Amino acid sequence: MSINEISRPICILGLGLIGGSLLRALAQASQMDSGRDNQHDQGDLVVYGYNRSPSAASTARNDGYDVSNDLIETLQRAEIDKALIVLATPMPAIAGLLDVISEHAPSCGFTDVVSVKGEVYKLVQEYGMADRYVGGHPMAGTAHSGWSASRADLFRRAVWVVTFDHAIDADPSRDWLRLWVDVVHMASKVGAEVIPARVRQHDAAVARVSHLPHLLAETLAIVGDNGGALSLSLAAGSFRDGTRVAGTAPNLVRAMCETNHVALLDALDEALSLLNDARDHLLMEDPSLADLVDNGYRSRIRFEARSGLNKEQSVSPTHISNRPVFRLHPGGPQWVNQLIQAENTGARIEVV
Amino acid sequence: MSINEISRPICILGLGLIGGSLLRALAQASQMDSGRDNQHDQGDLVVYGYNRSPSAASTARNDGYDVSNDLIETLQRAEIDKALIVLATPMPAIAGLLDVISEHAPSCGFTDVVSVKGEVYKLVQEYGMADRYVGGHPMAGTAHSGWSASRADLFRRAVWVVTFDHAIDADPSRDWLRLWVDVVHMASKVGAEVIPARVRQHDAAVARVSHLPHLLAETLAIVGDNGGALSLSLAAGSFRDGTRVAGTAPNLVRAMCETNHVALLDALDEALSLLNDARDHLLMEDPSLADLVDNGYRSRIRFEARSGLNKEQSVSPTHISNRPVFRLHPGGPQWVNQLIQAENTGARIEVV
Repeated sequence: MSINEISRPICILGLGLIGGSLLRALAQASQMDSGRDNQHDQGDLVVYGYNRSPSAASTARNDGYDVSNDLIETLQRAEIDKALIVLATPMPAIAGLLDVISEHAPSCGFTDVVSVKGEVYKLVQEYGMADRYVGGHPMAGTAHSGWSASRADLFRRAVWVVTFDHAIDADPSRDWLRLWVDVVHMASKVGAEVIPARVRQHDAAVARVSHLPHLLAETLAIVGDNGGALSLSLAAGSFRDGTRVAGTAPNLVRAMCETNHVALLDALDEALSLLNDARDHLLMEDPSLADLVDNGYRSRIRFEARSGLNKEQSVSPTHISNRPVFRLHPGGPQWVNQLIQAENTGARIEVV
Repeated sequence: MSINEISRPICILGLGLIGGSLLRALAQASQMDSGRDNQHDQGDLVVYGYNRSPSAASTARNDGYDVSNDLIETLQRAEIDKALIVLATPMPAIAGLLDVISEHAPSCGFTDVVSVKGEVYKLVQEYGMADRYVGGHPMAGTAHSGWSASRADLFRRAVWVVTFDHAIDADPSRDWLRLWVDVVHMASKVGAEVIPARVRQHDAAVARVSHLPHLLAETLAIVGDNGGALSLSLAAGSFRDGTRVAGTAPNLVRAMCETNHVALLDALDEALSLLNDARDHLLMEDPSLADLVDNGYRSRIRFEARSGLNKEQSVSPTHISNRPVFRLHPGGPQWVNQLIQAENTGARIEVV
């Protein structure tokens, strides 16, 4: 059994950038597997999807994929072949999908790709479906969206967070453990690095490194623009880089940031406290920004070292991850403690 | 007479990244001119420099440049050949240079390259030297410093701000007008786009687009780092770009931001006001970031349009500037009004 082998078909609901790319990537990986193992008689990974838009579904079918625009029919098929269902829609569509899954695919396990994990987990618990659910967050994207923007290599070397709160909050079933392993295998199969995290820890981390950057970029873009034509004419690299993500579609930015408002408030308050201190220092007779600038520099250097930004270009054709790796045996003794340790160190995991 | 012809030798004091690059760029441009015009007998542009460090001066001499490490001797030479003196040192060294220029090169005009213009102009006025001074700010740099980092192409397509307050504050002499033209010619000769601005307008603009980005980047770097290993492991493009300039040497960041503390406070207060509004909105029952995100997006799109970031890659081998151009005749009727109009529109100028 291959380390990346998934034990069941995969059914993807929603074929936008993330869902569409997942469908393409799994189909491609499955073809490569069957190319390598064509002397064996074992079945390839079956992957199929649903998209609400008939025209997008039809385009995907024309591209050679197994795609329907009938949700009920797709879920009935998933129930029959015990597929792993991937909810690849934004947050507002999740509750509706939980309703129809309850009715038409009552024995299927499922995962999701929403960028904030607390609200999804809460909803799943309210539906009493926590023993069938493993949360996921593939941290990949482009400026474009929809099936036409999707690509098979979107997740290569990207982070895919997989949550594990249910293993702590409840006594998880063997089925849940198998589901958890399959979600990890699925993410690994498309080239992502799997990082385990609990929902609260995940949401706090992305508030700091993914949502706060948007608030600061929007702010900088406005203050620069308020300076008029001279300011925009003098703007160079620091302004261009500092405002880049302000070019993201506003509805996407709002969905991420507003859904994560509790954790984002904490990160924003830390930022405001640092900026207010800097303001106090600028008001002094002999203005000094030593605290902010020295600490910010040290923090950036730490990030560069950790992410390998300052590493010499490797001559190896193989990508070597900068993240430490934990190999763990799901359900084994201490495995939850190992997960928490991996979360604390931001380590990627491999399931053995 | 060529549009870029400079009427006198150029003497550069300080051969770090900016001064060294200017020496290289002027020497190169002069060689290219003499290569083109070798049927004429006209003299090439003479350019020489001074560096405090004997070893850096010696390296520059070995690289083939006319460089001394004797300041007094260099200034005496400048006085004899009526050179344009370029103060290519940071702010703290300016007062000392004004002292020795007053004594040893009392008839030379001079310019500077300090990134904040208000403090230099104030100092020059206090020294009673405003009719011999034209402020400059070449907006170019790399992460490295010193003669070894300097390069002849550093200013190509970069902005070079040239100030003109003296034309409004006083009745400038004909010598000052000639000096102003020579500073514009010098910046044009090394490939920069010259944008005229008064010191207060310059300092306000760079506070918005050059100094505030540093404060926000330092802040983001610290808040991300405070999240520990998980946060840094999940950090991707938005964090990397948003913190990039926090990797700049702290003493350089502090020198820029602290010197410009008055204008930076205004820009920071605008940013704090926007972030505090966002905070209030996040605290509401139904959190909305519509104001910040929609306005930030519009501002970024305006910047992209203005800077040509969203333009199709041109097939032309010639670079076409995105800035409007004003052609003006220094000292002619309305020329100060034309300068103010160019400043208001962030236009580059050409002297005819």
